[in-house]
Amino acid sequence: LKGDVRIALVGFGNVGRRFASLLLGSYGRVLKERGVRAHVTGIATGRHGSAIDPRGLPLARCLRLVRSGGSLGAVNRGGPLASSRVFVARVPADVLVEITPLDRRGGEPATSHVRLALKRGLDVVTANKGPVAFAFKELTGTARRHGRRFLHEGAVMDGTPVFNMARYCLPGVRVLAFRGTLNSTTNLILSRMGRGATLREALREAQALGIVEADPTDDLDGWDSAVKGCALANALMGADARPGEVRRQGIGGVSPGRVREAARAGKRVRLVVRGDLRGRRVHLSVRPEGLPLGDPLAGDGPDTALLIKTDLMGEIGLTELGGSIDQTAYALLADLLTLFPNDQGVR
Amino acid sequence: LKGDVRIALVGFGNVGRRFASLLLGSYGRVLKERGVRAHVTGIATGRHGSAIDPRGLPLARCLRLVRSGGSLGAVNRGGPLASSRVFVARVPADVLVEITPLDRRGGEPATSHVRLALKRGLDVVTANKGPVAFAFKELTGTARRHGRRFLHEGAVMDGTPVFNMARYCLPGVRVLAFRGTLNSTTNLILSRMGRGATLREALREAQALGIVEADPTDDLDGWDSAVKGCALANALMGADARPGEVRRQGIGGVSPGRVREAARAGKRVRLVVRGDLRGRRVHLSVRPEGLPLGDPLAGDGPDTALLIKTDLMGEIGLTELGGSIDQTAYALLADLLTLFPNDQGVR
Repeated sequence: LKGDVRIALVGFGNVGRRFASLLLGSYGRVLKERGVRAHVTGIATGRHGSAIDPRGLPLARCLRLVRSGGSLGAVNRGGPLASSRVFVARVPADVLVEITPLDRRGGEPATSHVRLALKRGLDVVTANKGPVAFAFKELTGTARRHGRRFLHEGAVMDGTPVFNMARYCLPGVRVLAFRGTLNSTTNLILSRMGRGATLREALREAQALGIVEADPTDDLDGWDSAVKGCALANALMGADARPGEVRRQGIGGVSPGRVREAARAGKRVRLVVRGDLRGRRVHLSVRPEGLPLGDPLAGDGPDTALLIKTDLMGEIGLTELGGSIDQTAYALLADLLTLFPNDQGVR
Repeated sequence: LKGDVRIALVGFGNVGRRFASLLLGSYGRVLKERGVRAHVTGIATGRHGSAIDPRGLPLARCLRLVRSGGSLGAVNRGGPLASSRVFVARVPADVLVEITPLDRRGGEPATSHVRLALKRGLDVVTANKGPVAFAFKELTGTARRHGRRFLHEGAVMDGTPVFNMARYCLPGVRVLAFRGTLNSTTNLILSRMGRGATLREALREAQALGIVEADPTDDLDGWDSAVKGCALANALMGADARPGEVRRQGIGGVSPGRVREAARAGKRVRLVVRGDLRGRRVHLSVRPEGLPLGDPLAGDGPDTALLIKTDLMGEIGLTELGGSIDQTAYALLADLLTLFPNDQGVR
């Protein structure tokens, strides 16, 4: 699969638009160096219609249409597209890039899109944590049976290579446990509370930065962390965990007093997700913990961090500073490049 | 190159012995899963003689001999081995594992060993920072011309995948800058000074932990950090830097008073190595800096950390907790597995 490659995007929010505009620039250049000419043959959006063109959509025009509040219907040559499901079933493409917004509790519609695309014989790239957290075993099995790939680097810590590091850089290693501060919003809130803000003030600041979902409940109650913990347990530790099974406590009950008291004891409160292999099961939990200063998880602001404990390589950590849309978009590029290794077989 | 693989070890100190004993256990199992049966056909030591056996040395017996202060001469079937250079020139092997102690300032004898082995058509795996810091361009060129690999994951941060992450997990990305606290000894010393110890007391503690070289000067004066900075600049940023060019200031002049004053200002003093791409040159420096608490480099104890700044993926970090001989030995296994990818081409 080299030369001309047809890409379909389902979901066209901030990440999808950034990815598309980078395809016109730096990402396009990187792909060309790999001998790949990318054509976006379909885009499905929630509020701006959908479009298919087997010869490639005019990407710059699509971006202008959507940004100005218009509809992609104006450039659609693919017949009526009643739903995103119809779009995924019909779009002429080699790779599906799945970046729809997740529903609150079930990993849909992303999981259905991924399943359908794999069964149609498309490779799938997603930045969605839902499919990895809710259906990893099933989807990797489907991918294998159809000779396709299910790639999801962006599911946890954006483009920071969490899954790819374990897969490509720690050969022969078993992951025994992990702990992480994977939710940018609570990291920022608890960091600000440590400097005297109330939860409500800190949340407003996080919202002003644009890193909080419209409904911040999933961040605050630990659900987002639980979903990410499951994604890690499933993909790194062979588990078949579900977010509903995670012992979970959010930061709603964390008072500024508790944060200040921890600070006086030389600690920082952070919302920590943990996974521990005990026997054959991975035990998962999410709760606020007081971390000693100097702990790699006790970073500042929205930065995310993950420590993994292994059998052969001790304990190592990954940190992502910031957490920008560019970093999420990069996860999609990295996964695309996994599909098109260079001549030395290097992704 | 699969099936039976002949490995020669030049250098047989703590790391070499640990690697050899793990080859008899977990490493041997991991290699076998890749379809590789490893035979150690030669070992060269500084103080315990050298041995070659084309059919494979009795590894357990070699370990016993060396641990009890004996000489490997007892199991040598390879004729007289006057020097490590003669050993590298003659040993019947497919892979040379280079782990000799470095001289203070020149990257030898490791660089000569690597060069000679590559020219003989051996793949080379090393945990030595010298060859990467002093001769990266030359040695990668030699490897390419002879169709062999020059692998060096252990040169910086032991087996934490610094070089492999950049190579295998950040496709298409340019590294623009890095900063790191890469020297365990000074990390531990400055961490202890922050709790009231003098430099001398803290150094004694580090020595008791066994993480300091016989002569700690290279740690304290920043030379070790400068060598590692060059290794990163050369391998990650296309530089052709040499340690002597690095602007360098050690921790000898850092008083407990300065460390305490920094602590009062919410900072930690650490010896930081920086590399910055300016135009086509990488500017390198080593000096003590006051880092804000929460900075990923301001960890505790001997832990090492590295942050890299990229064009497409923002800034991400790697941390290694501890810094044990097992983690250095793992770097050698990871590099060996790079030579023997699995059936899906994954290392």
